[in-house]
Amino acid sequence: MKYCIHDITLAETGQQKIDWVGKWMKVVNRLVQKFDKEKIFQEKRVAMCIHLEAKTAYLAEVIQKLGAEVWITSSNSLSTKDDVCAALAKKGIHVFAKHGASEKEYWSYIDAITASKPHAVVDDGGDMCRYLHEHPDYTTHLCGICEETTTGVSRAKHLAATGSLKYPSLGINDALSKYLFDNRYGTGQSTWTAFAHLTNMSISGKCVVVAGYGWCGRGVATIAAGMGADVIVTEIDPWKALEAKMEGCRVMPMRDAAKEGDIFITTTGEKNILRPEHFKRMKNGAFLANAGHFNYEIDVEGLKKMAGNPVKVHDDIEEFPLEANRSIYLLAQGGIINIAGGLGHPVEILDLSFGLQLASLHYVLSHPNLKPGYYPVPREIDELVVKERLLADGVSIDHAN
Amino acid sequence: MKYCIHDITLAETGQQKIDWVGKWMKVVNRLVQKFDKEKIFQEKRVAMCIHLEAKTAYLAEVIQKLGAEVWITSSNSLSTKDDVCAALAKKGIHVFAKHGASEKEYWSYIDAITASKPHAVVDDGGDMCRYLHEHPDYTTHLCGICEETTTGVSRAKHLAATGSLKYPSLGINDALSKYLFDNRYGTGQSTWTAFAHLTNMSISGKCVVVAGYGWCGRGVATIAAGMGADVIVTEIDPWKALEAKMEGCRVMPMRDAAKEGDIFITTTGEKNILRPEHFKRMKNGAFLANAGHFNYEIDVEGLKKMAGNPVKVHDDIEEFPLEANRSIYLLAQGGIINIAGGLGHPVEILDLSFGLQLASLHYVLSHPNLKPGYYPVPREIDELVVKERLLADGVSIDHAN
Amino acid sequence: MKYCIHDITLAETGQQKIDWVGKWMKVVNRLVQKFDKEKIFQEKRVAMCIHLEAKTAYLAEVIQKLGAEVWITSSNSLSTKDDVCAALAKKGIHVFAKHGASEKEYWSYIDAITASKPHAVVDDGGDMCRYLHEHPDYTTHLCGICEETTTGVSRAKHLAATGSLKYPSLGINDALSKYLFDNRYGTGQSTWTAFAHLTNMSISGKCVVVAGYGWCGRGVATIAAGMGADVIVTEIDPWKALEAKMEGCRVMPMRDAAKEGDIFITTTGEKNILRPEHFKRMKNGAFLANAGHFNYEIDVEGLKKMAGNPVKVHDDIEEFPLEANRSIYLLAQGGIINIAGGLGHPVEILDLSFGLQLASLHYVLSHPNLKPGYYPVPREIDELVVKERLLADGVSIDHAN
Amino acid sequence: MKYCIHDITLAETGQQKIDWVGKWMKVVNRLVQKFDKEKIFQEKRVAMCIHLEAKTAYLAEVIQKLGAEVWITSSNSLSTKDDVCAALAKKGIHVFAKHGASEKEYWSYIDAITASKPHAVVDDGGDMCRYLHEHPDYTTHLCGICEETTTGVSRAKHLAATGSLKYPSLGINDALSKYLFDNRYGTGQSTWTAFAHLTNMSISGKCVVVAGYGWCGRGVATIAAGMGADVIVTEIDPWKALEAKMEGCRVMPMRDAAKEGDIFITTTGEKNILRPEHFKRMKNGAFLANAGHFNYEIDVEGLKKMAGNPVKVHDDIEEFPLEANRSIYLLAQGGIINIAGGLGHPVEILDLSFGLQLASLHYVLSHPNLKPGYYPVPREIDELVVKERLLADGVSIDHAN
Repeated sequence: MKYCIHDITLAETGQQKIDWVGKWMKVVNRLVQKFDKEKIFQEKRVAMCIHLEAKTAYLAEVIQKLGAEVWITSSNSLSTKDDVCAALAKKGIHVFAKHGASEKEYWSYIDAITASKPHAVVDDGGDMCRYLHEHPDYTTHLCGICEETTTGVSRAKHLAATGSLKYPSLGINDALSKYLFDNRYGTGQSTWTAFAHLTNMSISGKCVVVAGYGWCGRGVATIAAGMGADVIVTEIDPWKALEAKMEGCRVMPMRDAAKEGDIFITTTGEKNILRPEHFKRMKNGAFLANAGHFNYEIDVEGLKKMAGNPVKVHDDIEEFPLEANRSIYLLAQGGIINIAGGLGHPVEILDLSFGLQLASLHYVLSHPNLKPGYYPVPREIDELVVKERLLADGVSIDHAN
Repeated sequence: MKYCIHDITLAETGQQKIDWVGKWMKVVNRLVQKFDKEKIFQEKRVAMCIHLEAKTAYLAEVIQKLGAEVWITSSNSLSTKDDVCAALAKKGIHVFAKHGASEKEYWSYIDAITASKPHAVVDDGGDMCRYLHEHPDYTTHLCGICEETTTGVSRAKHLAATGSLKYPSLGINDALSKYLFDNRYGTGQSTWTAFAHLTNMSISGKCVVVAGYGWCGRGVATIAAGMGADVIVTEIDPWKALEAKMEGCRVMPMRDAAKEGDIFITTTGEKNILRPEHFKRMKNGAFLANAGHFNYEIDVEGLKKMAGNPVKVHDDIEEFPLEANRSIYLLAQGGIINIAGGLGHPVEILDLSFGLQLASLHYVLSHPNLKPGYYPVPREIDELVVKERLLADGVSIDHAN
Repeated sequence: MKYCIHDITLAETGQQKIDWVGKWMKVVNRLVQKFDKEKIFQEKRVAMCIHLEAKTAYLAEVIQKLGAEVWITSSNSLSTKDDVCAALAKKGIHVFAKHGASEKEYWSYIDAITASKPHAVVDDGGDMCRYLHEHPDYTTHLCGICEETTTGVSRAKHLAATGSLKYPSLGINDALSKYLFDNRYGTGQSTWTAFAHLTNMSISGKCVVVAGYGWCGRGVATIAAGMGADVIVTEIDPWKALEAKMEGCRVMPMRDAAKEGDIFITTTGEKNILRPEHFKRMKNGAFLANAGHFNYEIDVEGLKKMAGNPVKVHDDIEEFPLEANRSIYLLAQGGIINIAGGLGHPVEILDLSFGLQLASLHYVLSHPNLKPGYYPVPREIDELVVKERLLADGVSIDHAN
Repeated sequence: MKYCIHDITLAETGQQKIDWVGKWMKVVNRLVQKFDKEKIFQEKRVAMCIHLEAKTAYLAEVIQKLGAEVWITSSNSLSTKDDVCAALAKKGIHVFAKHGASEKEYWSYIDAITASKPHAVVDDGGDMCRYLHEHPDYTTHLCGICEETTTGVSRAKHLAATGSLKYPSLGINDALSKYLFDNRYGTGQSTWTAFAHLTNMSISGKCVVVAGYGWCGRGVATIAAGMGADVIVTEIDPWKALEAKMEGCRVMPMRDAAKEGDIFITTTGEKNILRPEHFKRMKNGAFLANAGHFNYEIDVEGLKKMAGNPVKVHDDIEEFPLEANRSIYLLAQGGIINIAGGLGHPVEILDLSFGLQLASLHYVLSHPNLKPGYYPVPREIDELVVKERLLADGVSIDHAN
């Protein structure tokens, strides 16, 4: 057995967390039952590089249960939970991950798990995909890669467009069952529950500024309004701007919103949405948080130049003192608030994503001769996943008598 | 048979309207069934002075059906529907009312119906109560008065306090079954459906300023937000102001709100809430409407002084041209928008009020020796009415097994 | 001057209605200013076949004002307003339309206006497009057709696919500025304000069943919930079903929803969504209305077979008595409730559509040599329209400093 | 210096938490500034018995800062935070409290702090008030008691009614600034953020059953709906039941709701609202939580009898396996979910309560000769507190020009 983790004695609490979320991953559990007899996973190796917490760990567990040998590392050492890693190691999963691991360790872990010569891969952001392209000797058994995120999908599409994608890559994020639900209902809720848990502040009565009115921004704005906030949206797309207005939000540029907001949430995917010219205008006590994928939406460097180094005033809260006796507060260092500061997406939301992952792994393992290239998740898998979820929830869409 | 109406040939369309609302006055209909055997109304005279439209007409019809002789006039000639009056006349009800009747006619009608020497009275605003005090010869059979409105109740309480109230007066408006529902859900919905019907404008995307956050203002603000408006509230009561803020509204004085609003709705019960200093700051195209009881919340005289006489640009819409190429629009001459410009409260809301009226009439007729004074609606009547409504709606509050 | 209308003396009230909505068609008005100097419309003939009420009449007026000769008929004689037609006639527009015109008259009007040999055409549903294909002698000057609706667009695309579309056809309905706003915010609001105006019933406290969770169904469901209803959605698409559930609606097949609903609104575009097996299960007092494009979503024939001929109990309300002492109520004969029973979409919503129409007419007239075929509205027009609207509303999306 | 705590070395993290909330207790901070010059607190002893966490600790700190000697213990050992206690001890506050202290320790702590012969008392539930009545030698300097909760207020009123209340007692809970905000906005938000943090489950898409539609139930229901839940309310009061229905909730008895709910929240203040007959009908996977003051709303004993001892599956989550392969989950052992499982009320909400406490302490210390008896918080204090909050939030209710 091979693994590299922080502390195996943490296994029990880690296992309790995995067991808890496993109860509610109903799509995944239904697919496990469905796939169990087919033996597709048996004696296959699956390599995973993904945020390593209870919900992803459960996905690893069920892949093992279906007969595969699982090798796993974390796509982000800050979100890695050592107790969850310990539980996986104890179950015989080859886990290479530590909270706070260095860049060097990160790549050594990637190497360790890809060296297993996996038949199939779960990737999150595209780093493992790139590594495999650079290490063709590790790809002798590779049937395909299932990529979780927008970023990874866009990297794969780019490779495909230039003819350099050497393996089949399935884009989980392009499935309806993921993108229709993940951002609106997942980010929407978990941003606010993380905010409340970090700060112990009321959301009712606050002026919330949401930068961007894409799927993510809509979710964040809708839940904020539902919890009693007054919502301002900033947008550059004219149609989205008009939609936000028709849904009761005020719409204005950030230079105007900066003066009004109590809480700022970025969701645009773009760089430096909040920057010094905005910090200057903000009220004393304003909060800054990011709910978009990348940690560059808030210009933290610019803020440090204005304010000097911040004071850590609470877990995941830094205070930046500004002129005129004002302070503004940065949450989770500008990383994704609901992962860094909370529990990530609700279980039911990731159940849809991981149902897609599991069925897509099943698909690539049962189609070992797929040609290299980018593939959307097959429609029948996308439909299978959403229908299993409706069945699990007892919702009927059967209108025949 | 005696009546004084505009045109008896309108009876058929009037009757259709009465029959329609009668289907949905389920509390009233259940009480009629309950009271029918008791013969309390038989050979009694009931005099009514109330807005004369389909729903009130239905109340008159059922009182007649229970055996009483009904005499009725209108409390407001502008809301009087001539076809409804015709239908009542045709059924043998003594109706004295015409749309657009003069002040002189108004008092002659009051005289005609009080001269019937009624056993019980339904009043709306207190004019008939006052008239009876001035004409004691008409009160020889009077058991009591059931007063519908806040205004009338407050006049009655004032008389009672000074010892000058000579008859028993029941305040319908003080019943929970009226005031908890009437303003929030009645005014809330009908203000906005009347607004939309008068103007054909979108409510989504508008900035709505609601003056006052009492029962009425809450209803208006809640439905506006539910229809996609951005809501500002003005308040002078600090607790209500904080409630409005905690419920997602912006709160500010009218001098600031004046610049932001697309639509202004007054609900305070106070005078001159919107006045020249505010008109001056309003945007071109702003709408002014009143949803409070009195027509003095908007200083229409002040507006005329600033703008000259308005142009009638549509039914119930007047345009006031102001300096700087701006126009603002007054709805329903500043009278209650949902009565003047719409159909009034939804049927189910008035069903609660008129259930209280009917049961209160039954109470005064069966207690002919009540002492003079102000009485709240007896708790058992209040409870009977709300419970009949829950029964009619199939809602159980019975938690026993 | 040539026209064929009901009564020219109605012109004054018609003109008042047109003038009213014209004030609020801000995108159209801004485009008129923009196009005015270019003389593109001058000495051109524009033929229009569209619902003939105040808002469409205003579009005709501005086309005339820009220099064109306008020929117009109605796409639906039931929605034709005779006063509005009179006003247009009085202004020298060639209007051929009467409320309640027969099928035969309908086609004679189409003939009369196409015989003008128009340079450009505004169509609504595709009948005039088809007629022009059958009468090539009328098309000698034709530069292109601007089609308003989904139906007409789909007919045009079908012709294009089979190579039989002989003229350029622009699909207004495919523009973002139309479909993102029209159904959600237009149908959403106007369905409920029409319902309230027709019935005088409360929406708060009702169980509303919305068939279909497309753009239209979302709008209807969202506003219903915002007005205090409990909302059930029926869907056959699994992703939409799950979205509805995640947004707080209950989701179930119509056979189950039939027993619970107080109000049923169809928005699917499909036939016989409500049919006898559902009518049988409905509560006494249920309301049926359609907010989808076609009047076949409610199986009215099936209902008549069950219940016999209905009783007209109010304008646009028919009562169908069923077994077990139940009655159900059909609104607007199953036609689109917000057109048949109300004022149609709010002005601001049609302003977007008609801004697209006007700019698209301008486009085809300035590109007289477009090849036959189906065209989406050019992106720059789509963007122009939404940006003019944001400018008119004072909403900035300019994030440069 | 005297104190009795678990571990003084925890002071630093405790102080960080206190400092964090202190930044946002703006009403308290403004009152401190106001009271600072008056020296009313100087050389007085204040005894406090209250939940001992960061926000209450901050209240203790400012009382000390104003010059008083503070003696404090915890009203509930389960909610006691040892790090916060350490921070207070380090600042010279006489704190007697340990997480998990025994009943015997509890009373010894009460004795220790009352033995200081306090001039004023902050009580939470009335235990300290009772203890002082039994130990008159400790009350030689006592000016008055400020009682935080409904329970304590009702015990004080009961004593007053029977003439046995020997000291002035001010009921904080009866102030508008407390009860209008505390339950609706405090419990409303913190129930759901605690639920999400404990379970990592989605609230969107769930059927939530709220028992009781008082202030607390309204808050819980409103936020649940705002976060995308389908809400059922159970009520025995007919008016509240009708209000819930008019606000879009389904209303039914618990025996029917039991079958539909995914999550049950009790808010009634009554015993055994959820009991075996309901557990029997619940779906597999149902969650039970209590947001009312007392921990007896869920019949945990009855549940244990049915299911045997539960399995602890996660912090503050117990699984009860039932027949038919079902399990139901109890949160926080049936104690108040937002205190036991979360961070309690948001800071801004407790800022209002503690502003009232501070101003009431100031009142009793400056009125040392108040007669024994129950007093509501004086209106001017209630108004002062809400107005300071509006000022701190920059909300103006000044409508003069």
